[in-house]
This record gives sequence, structure tokens and C-alpha cells, in this order.
Amino acid sequence: MIRRLCILGVGLIGGSLARALRETGRCQEVVGSGRRRENLERAVALGVIDRYELDPARAVDGADMVVVAVPLGNMEAVFRAMGPGLAADAVVTDVGSAKGSVIKAARRAFGVLPANLVPGHPIAGTEKSGVEASFSSLFRQRRVILTPTPVNPREAVDRVRAMWEHTGADVIEMDVAHHDEVLAATSHLPHLLAYALVDALARMEDRVEIFRYAAGGFRDFTRIASSDPLMWHDICLANRDAVLDVLGRFQDDLDRLTLAIREGDGTFIKEVFTRAKDARDRFTTIEDGILPGE
Amino acid sequence: MIRRLCILGVGLIGGSLARALRETGRCQEVVGSGRRRENLERAVALGVIDRYELDPARAVDGADMVVVAVPLGNMEAVFRAMGPGLAADAVVTDVGSAKGSVIKAARRAFGVLPANLVPGHPIAGTEKSGVEASFSSLFRQRRVILTPTPVNPREAVDRVRAMWEHTGADVIEMDVAHHDEVLAATSHLPHLLAYALVDALARMEDRVEIFRYAAGGFRDFTRIASSDPLMWHDICLANRDAVLDVLGRFQDDLDRLTLAIREGDGTFIKEVFTRAKDARDRFTTIEDGILPGE
Repeated sequence: MIRRLCILGVGLIGGSLARALRETGRCQEVVGSGRRRENLERAVALGVIDRYELDPARAVDGADMVVVAVPLGNMEAVFRAMGPGLAADAVVTDVGSAKGSVIKAARRAFGVLPANLVPGHPIAGTEKSGVEASFSSLFRQRRVILTPTPVNPREAVDRVRAMWEHTGADVIEMDVAHHDEVLAATSHLPHLLAYALVDALARMEDRVEIFRYAAGGFRDFTRIASSDPLMWHDICLANRDAVLDVLGRFQDDLDRLTLAIREGDGTFIKEVFTRAKDARDRFTTIEDGILPGE
Repeated sequence: MIRRLCILGVGLIGGSLARALRETGRCQEVVGSGRRRENLERAVALGVIDRYELDPARAVDGADMVVVAVPLGNMEAVFRAMGPGLAADAVVTDVGSAKGSVIKAARRAFGVLPANLVPGHPIAGTEKSGVEASFSSLFRQRRVILTPTPVNPREAVDRVRAMWEHTGADVIEMDVAHHDEVLAATSHLPHLLAYALVDALARMEDRVEIFRYAAGGFRDFTRIASSDPLMWHDICLANRDAVLDVLGRFQDDLDRLTLAIREGDGTFIKEVFTRAKDARDRFTTIEDGILPGE
């Protein structure tokens, strides 16, 4: 049971977490914080939080669980601002999409890596953002990755794990570098490609009315380009090394495929497409066994 | 009214067209043809066609409407094989995803570009293929692009237009080069990127269990990588020039974005992502006004 939950950044993720924990009766009180008063008032009106404090240090005061759900670019400033208010028994976690950068931000803000900070990342979301888009089942049957640090007591990790399990999530633990590499490949790179493609096409648009003739596959493929640009800007820079690594691999592969098309090397093209289809179909089969269809 | 419709290649597209026209009572008889007898027998059993002929020349015999729905790589061979059986009053159309290559194939097969060949392309499909996947509403509120040639009599174009309109499609006409450029950008390039991404990730899989942690966005983004590899191999080679052109533009854009990430140029990254989100949101708004939600 969480006595007082403090959510710093009451948006899609922070709001959905608060809703899920309130709905299952796993926390007695939820205090929100954030930069925009009107957003926090909206969160109170929606019943997502009980009350709010604009000052992060006052918001975390007396909380036994603190969830930092702000954009990666604001992480360090929020860590710094909340520091003075943190209770000795408080466990702190975050929901950032890149974990190495959160650990660096914490070291900079606190001078050392705090023992009670357990970095986390719920693999859930939609292309929408804001507390209005939040809903209590967002994490159900989704994975939450925790990346415990060497200084975390097991008890702190278990408290964060228990919180997420109460939302219906499947919680796993992995090391920070592995997390950042996997997410760069499966999430950050696809977002980058979708943004780059839509932008490239938008700039051809005047000439050829691209979007007028786009079909269903295009709609699916580019859905993630509707995601929040500022959040994804933060993610690309926060996970820069891992992103550049997978981007480089992808560009090499795309160069080879381009060459094959130019030279009419049908064998190579068929091999790539067939391997990809097989992998995608395997992925769907695995996924369908674990997650609900979307 | 079509007296006898001949469908060469009874798969997802050919089968769905036959179903749609039978359902609305717009054709008296449907004759199928193709290379695999068991597929044609299945099409008869499913009620998609009335009967079949393995020999294309026998299949088109007496048909007033002939639809060539074979992969782009087989187009020339099928044109050649059906030639001797074509009736003088028959109108021929096709459903190929690249139109310049179909016109070239026809010229090679017939020696000249036949006056009664009206190239066409329904912008519809799923990642599934085969007659089992066919359904009569596939073209409803979808666009069909016709690319009439200079030798087409208006009456031939109008007969093809009427056929597609009876399936519920929105029929438009454009020139061949424009079609091939627009489709390269909105369909062929996204498929290439999805195939290349999934293949690149599949080859990292052993090391990092990529697919185990992929989220919903990845599923949408890579859905088109489940499409038929042979069909897409044909399309990439058939529309090679236009594909290489948009691929080159995209690679230039991706290189610039990569450089911005490497150099930490946040302004540039935000600009690209914001422009892309705006364009994607505009596209969805346009699309929602015309097409049903997916």
C-alpha cells in the first residue's frame, strides 16, 4: 500500500499510473506537481490526483512513493528542485524512455546516485499526450522495465515493482545499457524513420499531392509520427549513442538494399524481404500470445 | 453490365473484384485463370469465379472485360499468352502497383501498345494475399487510379471506370509518371523501410532479444513488412527509377537528421519532428473526411 503517491508531471503516463493505482485502491492519496497550474487543476477535476503543489519540493513532502514522469530534458531540473522535500523513507522512480541519461541527470542533481532511486520505463503509450488522454488500463499486460542501480536496496526495487504490478503490468529487470540498446532499436529508430519519412514527403507535397493518394499501410506506418515532437527530441538526444548505433546499422542495410535495387539484384531483395516477413510474422505470433491484439 | 469477366490471377485483388461485381449483379459470368489449378478450384468452391481455364488465351476467349491481376514480374508473359484469345471488343485492364512497367510489358508482348488496354491501380489491399483473403468490400471508398494511354478510346476508359465504380471505389485518372512517383513515395518507400528495419533488427535479435520488448508503435510501423515479399520485389524493380529517386531524397534527409543528433542540434530535430507531426495530423484529418477510420 502506498500512503502518499507524488506524481511529478501529470500527463498521459503519470495520469494513467495515478488512475490505475486509485482504481485498485493501492494508494491513499495522490499529490501532483507540474509547471502548468491549469493542467494540474484539470487533473484534480478529472479525479486523477487529490491535490497539487507547483513547487516540487513541497509536492514530494511526506510522500513514500515519488514518480518522476516529466520529459527527459527536464529530469535533472526536477530532481534538483524536489531534493530538499524528499522524505528519508521515500522511494523515487521515473518513467523515462532512456535510462542512462536519467542516471546521469540524478548524479548531476544529487552529487551522488541516490540509493532510493530505481529507474523504470513502462513500455506503453499512445501517440496522444496529456492528462486528458490518460486511462487506468494503459499498463495492463504491458511491460515495465526496471533498471536497478548497484546502490539500490532490494526493498526499494520491490516497492517499485509492486506498484507497477498493481497496474496489471508485467515487470522485468535489465541493465541500463541493454535497455537503452533495445529501446533504441524497437522504439527510437522507428520513430525517427517515421518522422523523417513524413517530413521528406511533406516537402514533396506541393509538387505531387503525396498525401491525397496514400493508402492504409501508410497510415499505420506513420502513426507514430503523430507523437509529441518535444518528447521525442528529448529521447533522441538522451539516448544519443544507442540511437546513433542502430541508425548506423540501419543506414548500412538500406544502402545495400538501394544498391541491389539499382543493380536489379532480385535475389538479394527477395532475401531481405523474406527474412523480414518471417521475423515480423514470428514477432506477431509471440506478441499475440502475451499481449492483447491492438 | 459485363457479359463475361475474365480475371487472370485470382488472388486478393482479383478475387475481391470478382466478389464485388458478382455481389452487385454487374457481371453475368466470371472466368478465372492462373498457374495453380488448386487455387482456381478453391476460387470456384468459394464462389468467387464460375469456372476456370489454365490457358490464358482460352480464359479470355469471349470475355468483354479482362483484368490482369498477376504480379508485375509476370505481366509480360501473361499479356503474351492471352493475346491470341482476345476478342476484338474486349477491354483489358490491370491492377499493377507501378504503371510505367506495365506499359513497357504490353509494348514488348504485343509489339505496339494496344488501344483497348487501360492501365489501372486500385489503392487497396491488406498485408494478406490469396483468394482466401479476398472480400467484396475491399475497394469500397478506396481510390482506384487509372492511367489512360494516348491511344485509349474514351469508351474503353469509361468501361473500366464504370467497373471500378460498381465496387464502391473512387476512380481518378492521372498520368503514368505522376502515378509512379506518388506511389513510390507513399507506398513503395514505406514498404522498403519497414522491410529494411525489421531485417536489420532481426539480425541483432540473438544479441539483444529485440522483439521481446517491442511496443505497440512497432507493431503498427512494421505491419507492412508482413506483405508478400515476391510481390514487393517485383514492385521495387518495376518502379525502380521512381523508387530510387524518393529513396535518395529520404536518405539525404535521414543523413541530415543523423548529423543533427550527433551534433546535438536540438533546434533542427524539433523542426523536423514538428513539421512531420503537423503533416501527419493534416493527412489524418483529410483522410478521415474521405475514408472510413481503420
